[in-house]
Amino acid sequence: HRLGFEEVIYGASKSVALLTDILKDYSDKKTNVLVTKLQENKAKILLEKYKTAFYDEESGIFMLSAIDNNEEKAARIGIISAGSSDIGVAHEAYYTLAYMGVKSKIIHDIGVAGLHRLLNRLEEIKSFDILIVIAGFEGALPTVMGGLLPQPIIAVPTSVGYGTGKGGETALRAMLTSCANGISVVNIDNGYGAALSAFRMIKLLEKK
Amino acid sequence: HRLGFEEVIYGASKSVALLTDILKDYSDKKTNVLVTKLQENKAKILLEKYKTAFYDEESGIFMLSAIDNNEEKAARIGIISAGSSDIGVAHEAYYTLAYMGVKSKIIHDIGVAGLHRLLNRLEEIKSFDILIVIAGFEGALPTVMGGLLPQPIIAVPTSVGYGTGKGGETALRAMLTSCANGISVVNIDNGYGAALSAFRMIKLLEKK
Amino acid sequence: HRLGFEEVIYGASKSVALLTDILKDYSDKKTNVLVTKLQENKAKILLEKYKTAFYDEESGIFMLSAIDNNEEKAARIGIISAGSSDIGVAHEAYYTLAYMGVKSKIIHDIGVAGLHRLLNRLEEIKSFDILIVIAGFEGALPTVMGGLLPQPIIAVPTSVGYGTGKGGETALRAMLTSCANGISVVNIDNGYGAALSAFRMIKLLEKK
Amino acid sequence: HRLGFEEVIYGASKSVALLTDILKDYSDKKTNVLVTKLQENKAKILLEKYKTAFYDEESGIFMLSAIDNNEEKAARIGIISAGSSDIGVAHEAYYTLAYMGVKSKIIHDIGVAGLHRLLNRLEEIKSFDILIVIAGFEGALPTVMGGLLPQPIIAVPTSVGYGTGKGGETALRAMLTSCANGISVVNIDNGYGAALSAFRMIKLLEKK
Amino acid sequence: HRLGFEEVIYGASKSVALLTDILKDYSDKKTNVLVTKLQENKAKILLEKYKTAFYDEESGIFMLSAIDNNEEKAARIGIISAGSSDIGVAHEAYYTLAYMGVKSKIIHDIGVAGLHRLLNRLEEIKSFDILIVIAGFEGALPTVMGGLLPQPIIAVPTSVGYGTGKGGETALRAMLTSCANGISVVNIDNGYGAALSAFRMIKLLEKK
Amino acid sequence: HRLGFEEVIYGASKSVALLTDILKDYSDKKTNVLVTKLQENKAKILLEKYKTAFYDEESGIFMLSAIDNNEEKAARIGIISAGSSDIGVAHEAYYTLAYMGVKSKIIHDIGVAGLHRLLNRLEEIKSFDILIVIAGFEGALPTVMGGLLPQPIIAVPTSVGYGTGKGGETALRAMLTSCANGISVVNIDNGYGAALSAFRMIKLLEKK
Amino acid sequence: HRLGFEEVIYGASKSVALLTDILKDYSDKKTNVLVTKLQENKAKILLEKYKTAFYDEESGIFMLSAIDNNEEKAARIGIISAGSSDIGVAHEAYYTLAYMGVKSKIIHDIGVAGLHRLLNRLEEIKSFDILIVIAGFEGALPTVMGGLLPQPIIAVPTSVGYGTGKGGETALRAMLTSCANGISVVNIDNGYGAALSAFRMIKLLEKK
Amino acid sequence: HRLGFEEVIYGASKSVALLTDILKDYSDKKTNVLVTKLQENKAKILLEKYKTAFYDEESGIFMLSAIDNNEEKAARIGIISAGSSDIGVAHEAYYTLAYMGVKSKIIHDIGVAGLHRLLNRLEEIKSFDILIVIAGFEGALPTVMGGLLPQPIIAVPTSVGYGTGKGGETALRAMLTSCANGISVVNIDNGYGAALSAFRMIKLLEKK
Ligand SMILES: Nc1ncnc2c1ncn2[C@@H]1O[C@H](COP(=O)(O)O)[C@@H](O)[C@H]1O
Ligand SMILES: Nc1ncnc2c1ncn2[C@@H]1O[C@H](COP(=O)(O)O)[C@@H](O)[C@H]1O
Ligand SMILES: Nc1ncnc2c1ncn2[C@@H]1O[C@H](COP(=O)(O)O)[C@@H](O)[C@H]1O
Ligand SMILES: Nc1ncnc2c1ncn2[C@@H]1O[C@H](COP(=O)(O)O)[C@@H](O)[C@H]1O
Ligand SMILES: [Mg+2]
Ligand SMILES: [Mg+2]
Ligand SMILES: [Mg+2]
Ligand SMILES: [Mg+2]
Ligand SMILES: [Mg+2]
Ligand SMILES: [Mg+2]
Ligand SMILES: [Mg+2]
Ligand SMILES: [Mg+2]
Repeated sequence: HRLGFEEVIYGASKSVALLTDILKDYSDKKTNVLVTKLQENKAKILLEKYKTAFYDEESGIFMLSAIDNNEEKAARIGIISAGSSDIGVAHEAYYTLAYMGVKSKIIHDIGVAGLHRLLNRLEEIKSFDILIVIAGFEGALPTVMGGLLPQPIIAVPTSVGYGTGKGGETALRAMLTSCANGISVVNIDNGYGAALSAFRMIKLLEKK
Repeated sequence: HRLGFEEVIYGASKSVALLTDILKDYSDKKTNVLVTKLQENKAKILLEKYKTAFYDEESGIFMLSAIDNNEEKAARIGIISAGSSDIGVAHEAYYTLAYMGVKSKIIHDIGVAGLHRLLNRLEEIKSFDILIVIAGFEGALPTVMGGLLPQPIIAVPTSVGYGTGKGGETALRAMLTSCANGISVVNIDNGYGAALSAFRMIKLLEKK
Repeated sequence: HRLGFEEVIYGASKSVALLTDILKDYSDKKTNVLVTKLQENKAKILLEKYKTAFYDEESGIFMLSAIDNNEEKAARIGIISAGSSDIGVAHEAYYTLAYMGVKSKIIHDIGVAGLHRLLNRLEEIKSFDILIVIAGFEGALPTVMGGLLPQPIIAVPTSVGYGTGKGGETALRAMLTSCANGISVVNIDNGYGAALSAFRMIKLLEKK
Repeated sequence: HRLGFEEVIYGASKSVALLTDILKDYSDKKTNVLVTKLQENKAKILLEKYKTAFYDEESGIFMLSAIDNNEEKAARIGIISAGSSDIGVAHEAYYTLAYMGVKSKIIHDIGVAGLHRLLNRLEEIKSFDILIVIAGFEGALPTVMGGLLPQPIIAVPTSVGYGTGKGGETALRAMLTSCANGISVVNIDNGYGAALSAFRMIKLLEKK
Repeated sequence: HRLGFEEVIYGASKSVALLTDILKDYSDKKTNVLVTKLQENKAKILLEKYKTAFYDEESGIFMLSAIDNNEEKAARIGIISAGSSDIGVAHEAYYTLAYMGVKSKIIHDIGVAGLHRLLNRLEEIKSFDILIVIAGFEGALPTVMGGLLPQPIIAVPTSVGYGTGKGGETALRAMLTSCANGISVVNIDNGYGAALSAFRMIKLLEKK
Repeated sequence: HRLGFEEVIYGASKSVALLTDILKDYSDKKTNVLVTKLQENKAKILLEKYKTAFYDEESGIFMLSAIDNNEEKAARIGIISAGSSDIGVAHEAYYTLAYMGVKSKIIHDIGVAGLHRLLNRLEEIKSFDILIVIAGFEGALPTVMGGLLPQPIIAVPTSVGYGTGKGGETALRAMLTSCANGISVVNIDNGYGAALSAFRMIKLLEKK
Repeated sequence: HRLGFEEVIYGASKSVALLTDILKDYSDKKTNVLVTKLQENKAKILLEKYKTAFYDEESGIFMLSAIDNNEEKAARIGIISAGSSDIGVAHEAYYTLAYMGVKSKIIHDIGVAGLHRLLNRLEEIKSFDILIVIAGFEGALPTVMGGLLPQPIIAVPTSVGYGTGKGGETALRAMLTSCANGISVVNIDNGYGAALSAFRMIKLLEKK
Repeated sequence: HRLGFEEVIYGASKSVALLTDILKDYSDKKTNVLVTKLQENKAKILLEKYKTAFYDEESGIFMLSAIDNNEEKAARIGIISAGSSDIGVAHEAYYTLAYMGVKSKIIHDIGVAGLHRLLNRLEEIKSFDILIVIAGFEGALPTVMGGLLPQPIIAVPTSVGYGTGKGGETALRAMLTSCANGISVVNIDNGYGAALSAFRMIKLLEKK
């Protein structure tokens, strides 16, 4: 692909028949491919066909072949989640980065309601080049992080919550309206987009 | 008034003529009265008529007679604002409480984007019985306060911000969706309502 | 927990696997724990594992061990519901308070459309320290209560209704926009948050 | 006019030039005509031209000739307003009915927050054939009236309020979602439409 | 019941257990009762218990005993539907009126897109005292009817449609914003409310 | 211009300074140019500079030189407006077409509330190749036209109305949700876009 | 049918019983009929009854008898889709046109994110008389096409996407707000409406 | 400032009195300071006081002292605008970056509706490290850029447009929903936030 991004397929609105067609092309070319937001019932059928394929239930990430171990030690990107319910979106970012060949590490459940948990992990978080910060409910975590840390921060609102959370709209709007400096935002539940945004920065760093 | 609340008049949608009528009743009875959200152009005309009346430009609070000094030392209610732009709403709460005979203190501009300012004032804030926490933009301050402090917290979203802030809707929704425990919320810019909610608690405390 | 609140887990967006992990910690420590908004199919699996656990179908409240009888006689908090369809939210508030060690009493189905039912119970309602007032549809009950009673009122909109009720949005907005004095509001269907808001007030009362 | 309704002109979006054209036709025919929601600056110019015309500033109602006194004693329609800020909408209904030849009476400022004011006037209100019930803020008045009285009730939400009131949307939605029986609703601030809805009922009564 | 309305129960958000309790009271008193918006799976269980009960699948109307034949000949209320998909809402209005003892007649599928069908039925429609006009999609039918006929018109938007129809919101807003004179509106899919609004008028007619 | 469309400038958000710069280019090239939605105060300044320029106050259309008379007799496009308040949008379409060299005719004020006015003009309307149908309030006119006539219909919602009209949103949604066949829609108040959509059809016809 | 359009039935909100009734009429008359948006479970039952009927799973299109081959060579209408997930809407347009007797061709998956794919097909696309351009997500394809090509363009937003896509609302709004010239728009997922809009143009072309 | 960001003041909601207070501090310390979104009438008063201050009318940017020439030759950040109406937002980004000591260059008016203008400038645009892409109306430009170029892209929606543009909401949603890879987004009209997001990346690059 001209821009150096690997090919990626949006799985949620495609029928098994159509996905089978598309995957066959890659399988024949012996190329790996990433499918996002694939529902479990459809994944099961495809896993039957492609015995060596990989599927992560939390995120709906599917790949024709599992990626090599994404060793956390050299992680350049920190994936920070506010609550353990945000695990699916964190995984989507993690596996997308792995597929792009970029190491990352997930730090779970350090939401703003218990500030000490966040402050305890601050030194570790400072060590990453780029932060992907994931939060549902009121989405306050990226605002707090933005006031504490100087790295690029990509905020990802999640659909976790109910009522006034409006399926992630409130977290999204809170992140966009943040009074903290220089946070940028991607679509609700879009771990994939956050990973690609980080990937563009990584490529820029490597060019230098 | 049966419930022990003083009479209050909503000034924003009343004509000067109508307000003049209403104020005359109170003036004749030599009773003070509180008018909220009174626009400056209308206030000017009424101040001409009632020379000893009080008007605060930031909040639009008008009273037939100025209240005695609300000495901060014994303040039982802390009015915490995230940004200095929230001053009008803070004043609305302050003067309403003063009118109800309750002492309060305003602590300005300790928003979440600079967490140290907030942490520096924490000991002082701990000393209040009840907190009114005011924020515009993404409205994260009550969430952070709720995670740090055990008092009753009344959150007031303000219409400060632009674009995705939607005139206070985002701060409102963030406060209602907050993952922090036991925060309750009033209407956008409703410093008056927050003061009355606090007043109900104060009355309960006094009954005991 | 530093603030004196017991630990609480949001059950709706967590997988059984994740919940099992979390509950194991508490079970090992022989500590009770509250899970909110747990779906019935997930609850059934967990009840298999934890034979002495408690689950309330109406509210989705789950606890590792059932709480002692919350005798209504000494109830300090009145939980008032407008319609019998609001029962789930009333239960969520009730069990959360019980878990926090606070006695409360539920008074069902005294909505505004039949004002006499409400007026008949007024004396009893006056006796509570704090009121949690729950209503769906147009959400008028807290407004009427606020005009009749001087206690702190925590209003909880519910998602009961259809069409223009918008899953509780209309009741929520009506409560926030109420012309009655000093009502504060929590998220749609958030019986838990209302309970914690009341709990903050109870703690304040006890401190005095 | 075929349906027996008099001709009515929507004044808000028409230029003075266009209105002058239209009024000339009626003036030449020596027929009265009703213009609604006419802005004050435009009314002033037209009043210059038509010296005997009538204009009400609160409602923006304009008529080529003032109507005869609409004696309240025989009023068949009660126009009930929740707050004195709703006066403009009440006037719009009143003058439209007068123009249609129907007697009505306005009862001001008996909103739900002070239930006793409403209950004090109940006997009088019972005597009307049809009720037009006007409220801004949370719009609870028609719900309470609907539970107390058996007449046809036409609810009119007004744009009085701020923040979560959303220019009348909240009152509108609350009225439509009302748990009270058989209330019907017209557009925000639409005193004119409420009057015409009542007029259709009056015509039906007269046919019988 | 004081207002002369029969007792009615909202079935959609109540459990079978709760409904069973409530119905038992009526059954014991040998009184009929109307339940609205009852889901089919719940209705089946209740029909097992109450062998002589009545249930209409299209509308979800349930009654402890079927009503006597509502002979159309003397119908005073015309229930007009725009499309055959609106049948459920039409039935809800029809059975509610029957339960209240009022005769009505349904005229199906005369939507605005084929104006001739509507014009063909105009003479018949003129004969009713009151019109309940039901439409989904863009909801134009009440506007057209309001321009052609002088009776009271109660407009009912339905959730039939997709995309920009927004579950009935578009039809609702179109009806409220209608440029036709004196149409009043009830909640989306609220055939029940329309029937009760008509019933209030019928009672007024009978009083005269 | 490659597609055969003349150059058009959006005037509403440009400063007089910037517009002056842009117009100078055209003036120097002695080419006419169309500016849309130009506010009156800015137009006055530009008319001072360009004495032979043309400006229409109703629509805000500005051209460097007035176009030749667009004789109505050979009009191929009918511009139909529901109310006389829609005149500005009708003019925007008319002048844009004239600028593109296409003859059109405006038929005013034949809204749905008075169906006879519309039916009276039906023969004339049938003679146009293409219809631009403009309506505010509930926007029902295109639906009725679509059921009566077979031509291409471009529907234009206008911002005329108040309250539930939501600045044209309701008319827009009603037109998009229309149960009538094959109506297409442009932005609120977008007479310009409707004209260009018609122009694309005219070009297709001419190619044949 | 008077306008020359074939009869079409909206299948989504009709019960199998009602559809069976309606289809029987056509079957008895030995006339074909088109049903749109028919759900698979309902289609299966109807296909049992009408053995020679046609059903397309992607679009939910059902016809009593399959149409003759719509040979692509002479296609006058290009149906352009941005992503392969938009296939259902493309099919709805295609089969509706076929039913109306108009040849069309679908060009799949040439979305804006990979501009070269679009530019590669530009010559072919130029050859169509009319373009139906279908896109979900951000809906940018019609804007780009409108800047490159002079034909009539009917834009169809689809509900493909998640989060901020809001079930097609974002694509819809983007198409309506497009800065490209003369694009008109139909309802979300409304392949049927786009086909009928194109059909109106085809009829106009044929009349000439 | 701890994070290396210079101090910035939000000017839109502060009174002249408050701004004067704040600026005095900086002036006394002889430190420059940036004020954003300052209205012209307030700027004029402050410019009177601070004779050497800088104010840009298009963006509302105010600084106590003008910054040195931000020579474009070494620009690392490309600020790309879709239309000349987006100039204010482009300036806000440009001056903020200059204040932070970062060189940037603005490329105006290369919107998607005329794709050739964009393609003509592609080589130049490729040379920047980071792109800030600004668009109003349907906001398609970042999507097209994202498909053509590999750099980090920060998308800024603007409030330019009308009707369905909803003050920038449509452009915002389109950018967030973009099918192009790895675009991140800031608040509507937030040139300041885009600049700070770019600044975080620049700091990361410099650290390496
Ligand atoms: N700023 C405010 N926000 C909400 N409610 C208010 C406000 N000011 C006054 N009120 C309430 O509105 C009622 C007065 O309305 P009115 O009769 O229109 O003056 C009083 O009962 C007050 O409790
Ligand atoms: N009233 C309008 N509505 C929508 N688009 C317009 C309007 N006026 C001009 N345009 C388009 O917007 C573009 C001009 O944008 P600009 O370069 O900012 O003047 C042109 O390509 C026109 O096609
Ligand atoms: N998918 C569709 N989208 C919009 N309108 C449709 C659709 N299918 C059918 N229609 C129209 O809806 C009307 C049929 O409604 P009904 O009488 O309920 O079947 C017909 O006049 C069709 O023109
Ligand atoms: N135009 C702007 N948009 C968003 N945030 C801003 C803007 N201007 C300043 N800020 C941020 O808002 C905070 C200043 O708010 P305040 O204390 O009210 O002046 C600073 O920390 C800035 O980072
Ligand atoms: Mg947690
Ligand atoms: Mg500050
Ligand atoms: Mg009840
Ligand atoms: Mg009052
Ligand atoms: Mg039909
Ligand atoms: Mg007219
Ligand atoms: Mg694709
Ligand atoms: Mg341009």
